[in-house]
Order: sequence, then C-alpha cells, then structure tokens
Amino acid sequence: MILADLNGKVIAQWSTQFTDKQRAPKAVCSLMYDGLKVMCQEGSTSLKKVLHITAGAPGITNVNSGVVLSAPNLRDWDNVPLRAMIEKEMGIPAVVENDTNLAAVGEHWRGSAAGVEDFVFIALGTGVGAGIFLRDRLHHGANWSAGEIGYMGVSGSARSTLQVHVTGQLERAIGGLGIEKEWMRLLQRDRRSHEVALTKLRATEVFDLAVDGDRLAGEVVQYTAQILANCISDLALALDPEVVILGGGVGSHGELCRVTEKLLQRNEFARPVIRSSSLSTQAQLHGAISVSLSETESKLLS
Amino acid sequence: MILADLNGKVIAQWSTQFTDKQRAPKAVCSLMYDGLKVMCQEGSTSLKKVLHITAGAPGITNVNSGVVLSAPNLRDWDNVPLRAMIEKEMGIPAVVENDTNLAAVGEHWRGSAAGVEDFVFIALGTGVGAGIFLRDRLHHGANWSAGEIGYMGVSGSARSTLQVHVTGQLERAIGGLGIEKEWMRLLQRDRRSHEVALTKLRATEVFDLAVDGDRLAGEVVQYTAQILANCISDLALALDPEVVILGGGVGSHGELCRVTEKLLQRNEFARPVIRSSSLSTQAQLHGAISVSLSETESKLLS
Repeated sequence: MILADLNGKVIAQWSTQFTDKQRAPKAVCSLMYDGLKVMCQEGSTSLKKVLHITAGAPGITNVNSGVVLSAPNLRDWDNVPLRAMIEKEMGIPAVVENDTNLAAVGEHWRGSAAGVEDFVFIALGTGVGAGIFLRDRLHHGANWSAGEIGYMGVSGSARSTLQVHVTGQLERAIGGLGIEKEWMRLLQRDRRSHEVALTKLRATEVFDLAVDGDRLAGEVVQYTAQILANCISDLALALDPEVVILGGGVGSHGELCRVTEKLLQRNEFARPVIRSSSLSTQAQLHGAISVSLSETESKLLS
Repeated sequence: MILADLNGKVIAQWSTQFTDKQRAPKAVCSLMYDGLKVMCQEGSTSLKKVLHITAGAPGITNVNSGVVLSAPNLRDWDNVPLRAMIEKEMGIPAVVENDTNLAAVGEHWRGSAAGVEDFVFIALGTGVGAGIFLRDRLHHGANWSAGEIGYMGVSGSARSTLQVHVTGQLERAIGGLGIEKEWMRLLQRDRRSHEVALTKLRATEVFDLAVDGDRLAGEVVQYTAQILANCISDLALALDPEVVILGGGVGSHGELCRVTEKLLQRNEFARPVIRSSSLSTQAQLHGAISVSLSETESKLLS
C-alpha cells in the first residue's frame, strides 16, 4: 500500500504477508484498514484527511459497480462488492480496479509509457495479464475482461475450453512458476549428461544467471522470450500498438526485454517498440495514486 | 463499385474481372474510372456531380496520406499513392482505406453491428483480416496495420517470422484456399476406405454440403470453426468486444457462424456474441458510401 499527498508525492508505504486465511475478502479489508492507519501515523497525518482510496484486485473487476467479478487465483473472490466493503469499513470513497490495469495507468502517468497514447502493458509475475491503453484511456471491454491474456493460446499446445479458475495456457507456460518449471526440466535433462546439481531457483534468479553467461539459464530466457514474442506478435497484429511495456516482478527483467525485442525485430511488421517497465512492481501503486488524484480532482470540480 | 446519392441510396453498381495485367495500380485506376463513367450513365447522372470517392485497398493503408503501404497478395502494390492517383485521374476528392476496415464501417452503419460501440469484424474470403471498432470508431493502430489477423498463429502449428508477402498462418489454415485444401485432404483420406470420388469444391459449397448432412463436409466446418473460435477467443481475451461479426464471402456463411458460436459457448468467459454479416460481400461497398457521406458532410460544414 502507498499513501500520497495531493501532489502525488509518496508519504508512506506499507506491506504485509498474507496467510491463506487472510485472503478472504473481509480479512483483506481489515488488513487494508490496519495498513492505512499505520501509514497515516508514519506520514504524520490523520485518517480524517484521507480523501480517497484506490484498490487493485487480481481479477476481472467491474469498475462502475466496484465489484470483483472473479479472481482466477482466489476462489472466494467471485462477485465481491469490494468498493462497498472498503467504503463501509473505512468511511472513505473508493475505486476498485484490476491490478494490471492500475499498473498500466501507473506506467502511463509516470513510467515507461508516459506520453504514449496506444500501448499494451504486459505483467509477468505469478500471473500473466495485460492492461490496454487506447487513445490515452484504459480499454476495459464489454465484460470488464479485456487484457486477460494469461488465457491466450501458446503455439504448439492444443487449446482447451477457457475456465476462470483453471490457469490459462500462456500463464502456465511463462508465469513465474512455468519459467521455474522449465528451468528444473532443463536441469534434469542435462543432469544425465552433465552432472549438474539440481537447484530450485526463482524466475528472476534464472534470468540473472543468464546475464552471467549460464548456458542453461540462457535457454530458459530464450524459451520465455519466444512464447512472449509470439503473444506480442498476435496482439500487435490485432491492435498495432505503438509500444509494449513489459512489467511485473518477472517481466520487467532487462534480459527478458532484450531477448524478446530481438526476436520481434525479425518480423517485417507487427514489431512494436518494447520497453521494460520503469516502475517495476511499484507500477500499480503509482497507478492507484493517479486514479485517486483524478477522482478527487473531478469531485472538487463538480 | 457502387454509386450512391447524398441520402446513401444506391443508384448504380458495376463490377469487372481483373486480368493479372490489370492488377497494376495505374491499370486499376483506369478501370475504376471506366466503371465510374458506366455507373454515371446507368444512374442518369453526370460525372461532374460526383462529389467524393472512397476506395478500398486489400492491404495496409495509411488513410492520412492515402498511400497503400503494402498489399500482401499484390507484389506491385508497395507504397502506392492511390489517393493522389485517383484524384489526379478523375479530378474528384478521394479517401483510401483498407477494404476490411471499410466492411466493418458498412456493418456498423447499416449492417449487423448497427448500434454496437465495440466490435471486431472478421472477413473470411480468399484472405483473412479484421476491422476493429472501439468506442464507435475504427481502430487503425500506430502503423495502420491493426486487424491484420491473417498472420496470427494457429494452435498446434509452430510460429514463423512474419513477412508481408508470405501468406499468414491463420489465412493459410482457414482462408478460402485453406478450407478447400482441407476438404480435398479429407476426401483423399476417406477414399482409401470409402471410395469417394474426388470433387474439387469451393469453401461455401462445402459448407452447403454440411448443411445437407454430408459427414465429411461437416468435418470441414468443424475444422474451420475450431480454428476461428480459437482466434476469436484470443481476440476476446485481449479486447473483450461486445460482438464479433463474421463476414466475407466464406465467413458470412450461416453454418460457420452457428458452429463457431457453439464452440465459443463452452468458454466460461471470452465468448462474445457472434453474428453473421448481414451485408455479406457488399459490406465494404456500403462502408465506402458511409465514408464518402461523412467526408462530404464535414466539407459542407467546414
């Protein structure tokens, strides 16, 4: 969480680790309230002065009604009226938005997409999703599910029916866990011939190894970048965005960006400019500040 | 070609078959001029009264400059200043637009997409392409190549580098020729066991056979609809359009629409409403009327 003043300047930040029990909507609301109080204290301000809250939800979110329609990785988050819950618990007006969309807003406001009218922000972390900006505005879609690219198909794999609570094909392949699995698979493959010790690593650690010249880790980067480049090609064929921003804990790694861009340069067309997110995992927090500032401003002007 | 009055009422129509020689830009321009004169005569009007021309080009088109940047299936159509050529030859102000985009405009104006803000129009004929409407306007993209979905990947096939003059993967699979090839493949497969005579048919004839209950033709519809449904799923995951219109000579066949929609209904989400184009192969002509009317109107008002 982040607390900012009316100039958008960050006053305080707070974060916590969730236990599984704390992931239920009501518990999350209470935790947020706790965090807000801590930040107010830290920022030497009072809760009464907080004008607006923007919350990011890891799922398909109806921004008009403030309801989280479904969260792929959270089973008890179907049709949760999160905005109403926040406003009731804390007595502060709120907006609820998909977290990846918020990250795209952040990048547009003060990140790698500043000044770009049409772009696709792709977040690679535990999950895979996109936030789509068209004509300087977020594109939400008819059912609020625009950008759910984690369910898109992967070349060479047969398609299956799309189910919200079954991890999508693209996310399975190049979400953090998919990348880590590919690393273990290659390690095991080469153990037979090379005698390599099995080391479980996080996706970004594998990418770091690749930068240091590790051949096997380089193969994992290539695997990830190729699938990502195919997805970006397909998105570019449909939308032809000016820029694609790679973000999220895994996606904003410079090595992934470099190799993905190189692969896309082979295309004669459908090869948008590729940039790493400059705000990385903080993008959605800055997006939330931006949304709250706009909301507050439009309330003052109305 | 079509000639309409200021109410958008069709006055005359004209069409011709091109020889290969006549496909060169200059020859096409002359042919268009011939056609225009014939239509004027037929419509008992004079050439001097023609206020505006809108021409559809089967390629990536810069509408601002009036230049056809590249036409996948026409090698001598790279960087052709078609608008300037038309205006010089005929002395009438013109607009040049991608033909599939014009078809989308037509469907939005007086077809299956009337009143729909966000939709994807997919044309299946010899080629495969899309016109994308967002917030009641065509989406052209940063390099005028939005909607070039004929190059999108097909599940189960390895991706290759995108080249303008190499037929795209999706178009190879379910463009008219791809469908006819699949029909021949199935015929040959079953000849070994069933003794079926080899009959070369056009894609729409195969679809008609399927309606009549032919099992093999039904397989071809299933093949086409499955690849199309996967493509629509991917587009819907990215854009979440309200409606998808199936158009073009092959795509507007009712049986294809029925089976594709049935396949998409299995998805828990990313299942837009599917409609057959109501204007069929006339969609782009009506789109052209609409563009010319808007241009004329804005000139009168300025």
